[in-house]
Amino acid sequence: MPRRYTLPDVEALDRADPLRGKRDLFALPAGVIYLDGNSLGALPRSVKDRIDSVVSTQWGEGLIRSWNTYDWIDLPARLGDRIARLIGAKPGEVVVTDSTSVNLYKVLSVALSHRRYCKTVLTEKGDFPTDAYITASVARQFGLEVKAVDAADIPAALTGEVGALVLTEVNYRTGARHDMASLTRRAQDAGAMVIWDLAHSAGAVPIDLDAVGADFAVGCGYKYLNGGPGAPAFVYVAARHHEGLRQPLSGWLGHIAPFSFADDYQPAPGIDAMRVGTPPILSMSALDAALDVFDDVDMTEAKAKADRLADIFITELAALAPELELITPADPARRGSQVSFRFPEAHAVVQALIARGVIGDFREPDIMRFGFAPLYLRHLDVWKATVVLGRIMQSRAWDDEAYRARAKVV
Amino acid sequence: MPRRYTLPDVEALDRADPLRGKRDLFALPAGVIYLDGNSLGALPRSVKDRIDSVVSTQWGEGLIRSWNTYDWIDLPARLGDRIARLIGAKPGEVVVTDSTSVNLYKVLSVALSHRRYCKTVLTEKGDFPTDAYITASVARQFGLEVKAVDAADIPAALTGEVGALVLTEVNYRTGARHDMASLTRRAQDAGAMVIWDLAHSAGAVPIDLDAVGADFAVGCGYKYLNGGPGAPAFVYVAARHHEGLRQPLSGWLGHIAPFSFADDYQPAPGIDAMRVGTPPILSMSALDAALDVFDDVDMTEAKAKADRLADIFITELAALAPELELITPADPARRGSQVSFRFPEAHAVVQALIARGVIGDFREPDIMRFGFAPLYLRHLDVWKATVVLGRIMQSRAWDDEAYRARAKVV
Repeated sequence: MPRRYTLPDVEALDRADPLRGKRDLFALPAGVIYLDGNSLGALPRSVKDRIDSVVSTQWGEGLIRSWNTYDWIDLPARLGDRIARLIGAKPGEVVVTDSTSVNLYKVLSVALSHRRYCKTVLTEKGDFPTDAYITASVARQFGLEVKAVDAADIPAALTGEVGALVLTEVNYRTGARHDMASLTRRAQDAGAMVIWDLAHSAGAVPIDLDAVGADFAVGCGYKYLNGGPGAPAFVYVAARHHEGLRQPLSGWLGHIAPFSFADDYQPAPGIDAMRVGTPPILSMSALDAALDVFDDVDMTEAKAKADRLADIFITELAALAPELELITPADPARRGSQVSFRFPEAHAVVQALIARGVIGDFREPDIMRFGFAPLYLRHLDVWKATVVLGRIMQSRAWDDEAYRARAKVV
Repeated sequence: MPRRYTLPDVEALDRADPLRGKRDLFALPAGVIYLDGNSLGALPRSVKDRIDSVVSTQWGEGLIRSWNTYDWIDLPARLGDRIARLIGAKPGEVVVTDSTSVNLYKVLSVALSHRRYCKTVLTEKGDFPTDAYITASVARQFGLEVKAVDAADIPAALTGEVGALVLTEVNYRTGARHDMASLTRRAQDAGAMVIWDLAHSAGAVPIDLDAVGADFAVGCGYKYLNGGPGAPAFVYVAARHHEGLRQPLSGWLGHIAPFSFADDYQPAPGIDAMRVGTPPILSMSALDAALDVFDDVDMTEAKAKADRLADIFITELAALAPELELITPADPARRGSQVSFRFPEAHAVVQALIARGVIGDFREPDIMRFGFAPLYLRHLDVWKATVVLGRIMQSRAWDDEAYRARAKVV
């Protein structure tokens, strides 16, 4: 049995935390311990002023002139460069645009257009549904089959028939993390392109896309990056695939010269070819302001803190609520910044937790998920959350009609 | 020569204007006459408070719970129903999602999947480039040719070989407006599906999609609907096409039960099948607040005012600046809420206008465009703008290196 954490322990950890100053940069509601930043990140304080200024000054006063004055037109590229630093990409390899689903559609279409003699697209069973749905749609267009296998079976399934491997690095339910470097190499050795979905990785774990030789990646702006509900997503294309880059959603802002209003589509050079329509400036500006909190963050340090937070959670709950079945790998290197448990009444437990100010979430059919965003969570918060959850389990407080019936939190 | 407008004339028109109260609902910068609402609509005052509340209360305080508390998840459908009223659609036929380009990709894919024995997609020469680019991309996927003809030649080109007709109702450069009812009927008689792009129509002219029997439509939230820079777009699918509706961007929020996290994609019934990823709540909320100003607006009345504004502009400039070549139809029924002129030095003229507080815009190669948003423009504003433009032309004030060199306004 690992050594338990005491209150003085977690208080000492908070005092020694090199990231402790970051919490003040967030507007967190009183009386809430928020363990759901993996679903919707908390509000960075800088967002409010930025949005005020974008609405009143840039839009209201500047009107159409602000496309030039504030260089709105290049905001997707500037945001892409800021995210690039967090995922091991070079400036010019990432752009912020559309949603994760739409971006996956683009990059999988590009990947398969390079692979004419393949038969399948390989994915993991139980990956996030939008990845499965979009993968199925693109595969159908190319006349390919989708093969979904368990994580452990992926290396063996990487045969010469596979045109592309589509994988979410950190699984949304279990928090299990793939070995990106070895799977990328393995897939490319088999002749397949690799597309990484970083929805639960960006802003949570250190990623080095260029170093592992990744081909394509997509990811989400509203989870650990704190860009706000439904924030625009990002897309990465390795520089070596930029020449001749062309994707099916050939909208005007992916054109080499959008304001020439030419009749024929000629893709912009580089990552801009992944752009489509006019960028949603309000939502983009919120993400831009939110990224300020990351500017001096070393992702290795952030992950180390998240690992400690997760360790507190796992260790304490193993003692306080042994009936919860841990489904997240115990090895920190094999997981993201998330811990999940299986329990038959998980939905009612999550409702009881929320009623007591501890916000995690539920995923079908019987999973409770807890995210450990290291920029705004204290060790003390996580320790307190284990006390609350422990009490709920010991008192069977969840066994109440109200919690069983409550509408599901998305 | 039509009768000129005097200052007392336009002041009398303003006093009698049934829409005169609407101007106070907008935050307009001092010293500016804004004739570019066809490119980016002005800021409705209600947006600022709404966005403050969405950021601070809904996101900041509510966090993940706001997906339920504020029903964020159905915001795209609620917005769609509000826009439906403005374009002659029924509730449930319109949803707000993605960009106009992405939505065109979806509906053209749906349209062509219904038409297996066709050879071409018909469009108009000189339509907005994103329509041409997306149309070319989808046509290529279906193995079809794109045929682009002049507006006058469209009826004759509607042969049995045409699978779909893609048309922008109001041309972005000239402001010319198609006869939607007759072209829809003509296309359908020839066996083609019709897709209307309402980018320059929604919120500007009365539209009755259901009455004309339209198949599909797409449109923009940030022009006459005033939803803010890059606001999300909308998509219309006639109720008779809802059964079995399935589009290639099969993201999780177009699924019949997104939160069941099922492995297989099953499209939602009805218009929700056009949804893809998580909606950008900040940008969507701005559009929602912006639509408040339209709630009691009769679009026939709004167009009648815009027609009068355009008539002031055309009549006065015919006298004050006869060297400007009107390229917008003189018949109000054949145009949108926009007037365009051709002039070799159009770009420099527009720069000189902007420097004097009159904002219109320039379009390649030699076109100046002026939009007449009837909710926030007074007859007096438009009359004053003609005085400013008349003086620039008479004094050749545009013939100045500064105006010739100035970066282009988008």
